[in-house]
Amino acid sequence: MFKIKASQGSARAGTLKTSHGKLKTPFFMPVATKGAVKWVSNHELEETETDCIICNAYLFSIRPGLEIIKKAGSIHDFIGWKKGIFTDSGGFQTLSKQFLIEVSEDGVKFRNPFDKSERFLTPEKAIQIQNTLGSDVAMCLDDVPLHKSTASRAKESAERTTRWAERCKKAHKNKKQLLFGICQGALNEKLREKSAKEIDKLDFDGNALGGLCIGETVAERNKMVKISNSQFQENKPRYLMGVGSPKDILKCISLGVDIFDSCFPARIARHRTAMTSKGNINILNARFAKDFEPLDKECDCFTCQNHSKAFIRHLVKTKEENGQRLLSIHNIAFVQALVKKARHAIEEQKFDKLVKKYS
Amino acid sequence: MFKIKASQGSARAGTLKTSHGKLKTPFFMPVATKGAVKWVSNHELEETETDCIICNAYLFSIRPGLEIIKKAGSIHDFIGWKKGIFTDSGGFQTLSKQFLIEVSEDGVKFRNPFDKSERFLTPEKAIQIQNTLGSDVAMCLDDVPLHKSTASRAKESAERTTRWAERCKKAHKNKKQLLFGICQGALNEKLREKSAKEIDKLDFDGNALGGLCIGETVAERNKMVKISNSQFQENKPRYLMGVGSPKDILKCISLGVDIFDSCFPARIARHRTAMTSKGNINILNARFAKDFEPLDKECDCFTCQNHSKAFIRHLVKTKEENGQRLLSIHNIAFVQALVKKARHAIEEQKFDKLVKKYS
Repeated sequence: MFKIKASQGSARAGTLKTSHGKLKTPFFMPVATKGAVKWVSNHELEETETDCIICNAYLFSIRPGLEIIKKAGSIHDFIGWKKGIFTDSGGFQTLSKQFLIEVSEDGVKFRNPFDKSERFLTPEKAIQIQNTLGSDVAMCLDDVPLHKSTASRAKESAERTTRWAERCKKAHKNKKQLLFGICQGALNEKLREKSAKEIDKLDFDGNALGGLCIGETVAERNKMVKISNSQFQENKPRYLMGVGSPKDILKCISLGVDIFDSCFPARIARHRTAMTSKGNINILNARFAKDFEPLDKECDCFTCQNHSKAFIRHLVKTKEENGQRLLSIHNIAFVQALVKKARHAIEEQKFDKLVKKYS
Repeated sequence: MFKIKASQGSARAGTLKTSHGKLKTPFFMPVATKGAVKWVSNHELEETETDCIICNAYLFSIRPGLEIIKKAGSIHDFIGWKKGIFTDSGGFQTLSKQFLIEVSEDGVKFRNPFDKSERFLTPEKAIQIQNTLGSDVAMCLDDVPLHKSTASRAKESAERTTRWAERCKKAHKNKKQLLFGICQGALNEKLREKSAKEIDKLDFDGNALGGLCIGETVAERNKMVKISNSQFQENKPRYLMGVGSPKDILKCISLGVDIFDSCFPARIARHRTAMTSKGNINILNARFAKDFEPLDKECDCFTCQNHSKAFIRHLVKTKEENGQRLLSIHNIAFVQALVKKARHAIEEQKFDKLVKKYS
């Protein structure tokens, strides 16, 4: 399934075989929670060289509901996307006060965000939903502790995550779908190590690093990434959930991560920020009013090939959402180009130089 | 400049030569007031077979301002659109309480919508702005009476529109740019006839029908279109401002109109309505929840080639604006396909059949 083709230090370049083609690693997934990245069409996503997206299985099970997905065929058929799709189980939603009612050993009591009714999600149910959706990679249901939780809650959630992972593995029936485990352990080194070791032992198709990027410092996160990866087998893909800035992605590739997802590039675009090879810029800055250059001269994306900073600024300033839309397309393409560069750099043993450029 | 290649009854098919290529008539212009159709990129507009758009010169003169357009080169360079652009003078904004302060013989006192300051727009200034923007077709500044204005106001505005048209013609200095006159006259047959005759006499590159589609009945509008066109020379293009529904476009082509603009297709898309060959549909209707067919089986647009009604409904229902975005692309493409059909039907002397199909 997963083959490492080249490595430099802990960084690796490889391929992950899925039902919708081989995905070259490292790769980055834009977040299409309900089946679409905000304002960006599938065609535009493909043009950013996005090969895989991540959708939220729990939300799909409520709307449109599994009956409709079954009638359509699969989540791919329903949303009209022919490439890779990961689905998140819903575990991450336990961090949201909007969603969570209560966690118990049996599962999670959720608030249905659409009609406010109660729903109960068990590890088995989370897997059944994903089996039915037919995503390429399903994720186990994990018990995610808040960033600043007590030691006993951190311990409970890490241990429960292992028990839930066992239940998920048992419940998984879709042979065309890969299943990834997720480790927890908050910021406690020993807990993190133990959790990663236990998840690794369950021999999933890949291992994910959960419960990070939720408020901890970069140093804390990096330490946890290092510890987790030290426990994960070499020959399994490693997926860090929630990282999306250029610097963070490169750092974590250097720590041995293969897969990333984040809404960060599109979210900062909606907040008028463009990523460039010289750092982030706020397009509303007055100096861009007469700047007829593209956001980034080296960028091949639709936005940079067709529009100037001055025009995008004009759109944003006059409240035309096409401005933020063009920024979203650019930022996603920018991250994809960077990850591709990282892949090539690892293959050519030049990855250390690339990391230096962005650190 | 304008050549009629075929006609059937009063309907005509021809070409209008502009600085950015020959435009086949009849044609329809989506409204890109500030340089963009809401949520739709230039590339997507081109894919809908849109050959010409209309922008608002008055708003462009405020934001980004003429200095910036001059630095960019032209409005085409600034917004990154290589095909035809009409600019409206700002006359239509006199109907808006948000904009208008006062009309006098000299010109219009406007409210700057961005900073609430006062601006004074004269016919000369309106033309200078458009000369600088470098649109393919500039429009005269007209004095537009409200739908239900008094007889004396209707008379005043029609007569003033002629005097302003003379001033516009005199002020127009951009030889690469065509200039169209606009007739007024409210719903008064004699006034309308007189205004159209006077505007026609000034020998513009084309004649527009103004002050319609602002609350009158379809029958009233059609009568005014007929009267105006009866006064306009055959060999000048005729532009009806503000019409955008399939039925209305076909009817007005049959009355001799060549050019249309309207925000209608994109606006009803934002209100969740799709145009189809079987009439309009509201995508939120429950019967589309399991409808995996495209919006219109005969449609070649991006939306219909890639997505089902069920998916678009899902996006709209879960408040993902990509739903309305996909509807906008479809509706504009639908109108463009219809206008193209009309053109071909006129060339093949089958236009009467097409009108019947949609009436």
